[in-house]
Amino acid sequence: MRIALLGGTGDIGEGLALRWAYHTDHEVIIGSRDPEKARAKAEEYETELSSRGRDVKVNGFTNEMAADRASVVVLAVPPYHVADTIEAVADSLDEGDILVTPATGIKRDDDGFHYHPPKAGSVTALVTEAAPEDIPIVGAFHNLAAGRLADLDAELGVDTLLVADDPDAKETVRLLAEGIDGLRALDGGGLANAAEIEALTPLLINVANNNEGLNDLGVRFQ
Amino acid sequence: MRIALLGGTGDIGEGLALRWAYHTDHEVIIGSRDPEKARAKAEEYETELSSRGRDVKVNGFTNEMAADRASVVVLAVPPYHVADTIEAVADSLDEGDILVTPATGIKRDDDGFHYHPPKAGSVTALVTEAAPEDIPIVGAFHNLAAGRLADLDAELGVDTLLVADDPDAKETVRLLAEGIDGLRALDGGGLANAAEIEALTPLLINVANNNEGLNDLGVRFQ
Repeated sequence: MRIALLGGTGDIGEGLALRWAYHTDHEVIIGSRDPEKARAKAEEYETELSSRGRDVKVNGFTNEMAADRASVVVLAVPPYHVADTIEAVADSLDEGDILVTPATGIKRDDDGFHYHPPKAGSVTALVTEAAPEDIPIVGAFHNLAAGRLADLDAELGVDTLLVADDPDAKETVRLLAEGIDGLRALDGGGLANAAEIEALTPLLINVANNNEGLNDLGVRFQ
Repeated sequence: MRIALLGGTGDIGEGLALRWAYHTDHEVIIGSRDPEKARAKAEEYETELSSRGRDVKVNGFTNEMAADRASVVVLAVPPYHVADTIEAVADSLDEGDILVTPATGIKRDDDGFHYHPPKAGSVTALVTEAAPEDIPIVGAFHNLAAGRLADLDAELGVDTLLVADDPDAKETVRLLAEGIDGLRALDGGGLANAAEIEALTPLLINVANNNEGLNDLGVRFQ
């Protein structure tokens, strides 16, 4: 399967790109507003993978071209770029494509990090509003520490929660997620349940910041 | 230490009462608006503990009398009874006492369970508004499945997050929490970080409801 990581030069995009290219046979495509940056990062990922004996091609393109080439399109961009990124790639999305959203809204104050959703109620809801109607949305990968994901030496042993209203799209993303070693994908229900999942991310940062020895935290439901 | 569980006849109260009485030497006191109910439940807990070779006294009182006798007072009541319970026991709280709040606001709709905080922003914030100024508040035990907690055969192996602005009170409750076998207490920061912790509870219920084989879920940060 071809997976496009829009904003794939950023931290969560890097982690997902490396993990899928390393652990699976899916073809990973890096998208960016700046195609030069996408190509440079894609080469970096190739070098990293090659140093681990994994010689695979990772291509970099504009977000539009990356979305056009892939059947699963991951919006690995900050929440304030979600709407304009979708607008930019809307014409590149075909029937059968799936849009995946891992972004969450976070603000920081003196007390720590807090969930700060957009007016739509959650970033996932914002994506649903902005996306073409016939493209199914799957929320996933919200609660993964980017640094740990991008470090192929780091064991994961954590869960990711999926929300979607389209069961087939959810199943496709579940299989993609479980293709990553040490990642367990659990069903979080429909898109309307996204806010509580997104809110877990600032909590993970607070817990890591307040407890010695806990860094790059993930979560395990047990 | 003497711990009063106000609303200690309810499900989370039962779990905490049994665990503390079983795993520690703290004296557990059950409070209820109805002292007869408190006494009847306290006797039930004694019988359960005695059947496991643990012969300890558990007393039941009105919430006021339970709070008066204890130095740690746990508000194990539903969120809509938090304010009136605090009002009822305010005169029974002395300097040095600690008020612990495990409650969270949850609503259910067709999609599942959602975080539904009171106007104060979180149940913890509501407690802070309602409590006497000189009594430190600690948020804890929000994310524990009551049924699993009350089943002394069930291993926990999960975390609870503490929030407080008073470090001594937080440390006291941390030690109480870690006295329970299989429970790890982590620092969630100040009281202002409570909402994200409370929001984790409806998420745990959604995940349990949507995934076969996962019941009475807790969470482990790792």
